[in-house]
Amino acid sequence: MRILVLGADGYIGFPLSMHLANIGYDVVGVDNFLRRKCVAEVGSHSATPIKSMSERLKAFEQTSGKKICFEYGDLMDYNFVDYVFNKYKPETIVHLGESTSAPFSMIDVDHAVLTQTNNLVGTLNVLHAMKKQVPHCHLVKLGSMGEYRDYNIDIPEGFFDIEYRGRQDTLLFPRQALTDWYHWSKVYDSGNIMLACEIWNLKSTDIMQGVVYGARTDEMVNDNLLTRFDFDAVFGTALNRFCAQAVLEHNLTLYGSGGQKRPVISLRDAIQCFVLAIKNPPEKGEYRVFNQFDEIYTISEMAEKVKKIANKLELNTEIKYCRNPRVEKEQVNYYNPIHEKLYQLGFRATHSLEEELEGMLTDLKKYKYRLIEKKDQILPKVYWRDIDNAEYKCEDDMIDSHQLSATL
Amino acid sequence: MRILVLGADGYIGFPLSMHLANIGYDVVGVDNFLRRKCVAEVGSHSATPIKSMSERLKAFEQTSGKKICFEYGDLMDYNFVDYVFNKYKPETIVHLGESTSAPFSMIDVDHAVLTQTNNLVGTLNVLHAMKKQVPHCHLVKLGSMGEYRDYNIDIPEGFFDIEYRGRQDTLLFPRQALTDWYHWSKVYDSGNIMLACEIWNLKSTDIMQGVVYGARTDEMVNDNLLTRFDFDAVFGTALNRFCAQAVLEHNLTLYGSGGQKRPVISLRDAIQCFVLAIKNPPEKGEYRVFNQFDEIYTISEMAEKVKKIANKLELNTEIKYCRNPRVEKEQVNYYNPIHEKLYQLGFRATHSLEEELEGMLTDLKKYKYRLIEKKDQILPKVYWRDIDNAEYKCEDDMIDSHQLSATL
Repeated sequence: MRILVLGADGYIGFPLSMHLANIGYDVVGVDNFLRRKCVAEVGSHSATPIKSMSERLKAFEQTSGKKICFEYGDLMDYNFVDYVFNKYKPETIVHLGESTSAPFSMIDVDHAVLTQTNNLVGTLNVLHAMKKQVPHCHLVKLGSMGEYRDYNIDIPEGFFDIEYRGRQDTLLFPRQALTDWYHWSKVYDSGNIMLACEIWNLKSTDIMQGVVYGARTDEMVNDNLLTRFDFDAVFGTALNRFCAQAVLEHNLTLYGSGGQKRPVISLRDAIQCFVLAIKNPPEKGEYRVFNQFDEIYTISEMAEKVKKIANKLELNTEIKYCRNPRVEKEQVNYYNPIHEKLYQLGFRATHSLEEELEGMLTDLKKYKYRLIEKKDQILPKVYWRDIDNAEYKCEDDMIDSHQLSATL
Repeated sequence: MRILVLGADGYIGFPLSMHLANIGYDVVGVDNFLRRKCVAEVGSHSATPIKSMSERLKAFEQTSGKKICFEYGDLMDYNFVDYVFNKYKPETIVHLGESTSAPFSMIDVDHAVLTQTNNLVGTLNVLHAMKKQVPHCHLVKLGSMGEYRDYNIDIPEGFFDIEYRGRQDTLLFPRQALTDWYHWSKVYDSGNIMLACEIWNLKSTDIMQGVVYGARTDEMVNDNLLTRFDFDAVFGTALNRFCAQAVLEHNLTLYGSGGQKRPVISLRDAIQCFVLAIKNPPEKGEYRVFNQFDEIYTISEMAEKVKKIANKLELNTEIKYCRNPRVEKEQVNYYNPIHEKLYQLGFRATHSLEEELEGMLTDLKKYKYRLIEKKDQILPKVYWRDIDNAEYKCEDDMIDSHQLSATL
């Protein structure tokens, strides 16, 4: 069973490739290292000292005895995509090869265009090359739970039965993404994939994934096999930034009041989900949507958990609030995405956020020197509304939670 | 009152620019003549012998005494967009500057990518330049009724109140576009515009327009002021192709059974709608959706009307069916888009399809020599499912309506 992993150098792509190889798949990785370049562009680096792809693959072969093939190239280049699909004729393609950052897409018009064209054109190329080279292949595409917001109604998995003005239909559930060009690009990919399944009889699982946390899987038996851990304001998730701040014994900075709710899942469990999707493909012509997450927390709750575990590890940190660089609702009253399909396929979460956090902080302490080097990249510099006005400093109006409570 | 018309060389753009200038607006047109190039690329031309932009503008000034400014450039070039917005500081921008053809987007991967990137990047550039140069400007954007399909429920104008599993919300009505890359690109534009209104307090009217017919407005006082009339399989609407076939006394070829329903509006009435949108801008931060059409017909009904008027003009033509090059439902049972907002602003249709058809056929007869030159471009060559298999000829399995009825 041959699987192509597009974006095999990424945070999920590399551990997923190792895991798939370990359980017997013939894995071919594809990447153009765009993520490494973009993180360097914003002046940061991964907290974990990740190796080059050739070193990673050599180390994996030495420890596991398994070989992962690799092709360097850009999904924006149709001839490359066509060449790779024709050469390997995969039965499954896991497409993780996209630009992934909301703040990156909000830097300026160039970054908005780069994010949307990179994602759309890459996926259009994948769909056209599938049609030509491997029309029976299963495309497992990484979407995002951020393709939806906190609606006041439940969020189904893809489609829903609707009654309106006395008539019924089954429609695509409306996707109103989070407020940035990146999350909307994922909505547009979803549209293109649905269309390709319909007109060309392709089959795809479109994964609406929550925020993934953790940087460890069982495959990482030595430091040459670590995956990346971004902690800067542009590429790090809120949770990753809190972990970095805790290890640095800085304040944990919440954007606004911190009432934003986010669905989360551990890296190991996300990989478990991908394997379930791969092993249980949809029918030909089917466009299938999974909501892929385990728990739901507010940003405040995440910070509280990080603080609790940090204090246990004798790291001294407090929770502070700063001006929210984004335009978003900070108090969410109802948020209920349905996530049943993966559980029906046998998914059972193996790690909760709190269980994973102690390992994350312990790991990160080893690389504290790398956090110190880029500590100025943790607070936000990209503002949704006044990007041109970058002299504004987050620290200027940071207040602690006690003060905030007093003002509410 | 200064208005920029993006796509001022186009089918709607040119007569709209003339009309706006005539009623007192200070009009600046922008175009890169992409439509002319693409029509030439597919081996066709406009039935009407349209003049170059400089000849058009000179002729308009001579007949009306009004001057329309013009800037040549590509909306894909952000620096150009920024330059134009800064130079003219418009109060309204009418954005018609997009690639508009479903079959063109289905030719191959290059045309899919060209269509989606041209439309998305152009609109992203417009939004970013508006934010920087003219944040109070009203963007009137041409979308498409093809951003929706024939749902079994009514299609509201943009948003709707929904009840699901016992809870309520007001959401964006789900956009499941027609089955081609072009119509989905319009959905993606709509998403980007909605986002820009939300995060940057821009204001926009997103016009879900039906199929526009007719090639005459009162401004076309001589042949130098004609607008384009495309009749080839790639750029011509079904109605335009039927008109060309009628004048050539060819068969009118329906795609499949012809039960597909389409909302339509005349060119003059579409221009009336644009003026209403311009004169009644939304509030700052508002993203407003209009469903802009007058009547709804099946493709069969359109062909019947063309045949009836053609026969009246002593043009001998029959309706025939051919294999549908598209992947689409050919029998629509329910199709009810709501269109109230423009009527509330005072819109009243001045022309029905049947009234306009006689003029269209009479005009086209003058240019029959231009139809003859490109008569081989009327039958479809682009197939949604086997684009690579272009040797298949539509004529091969053309059968007349009598035969079709016998087989049903």
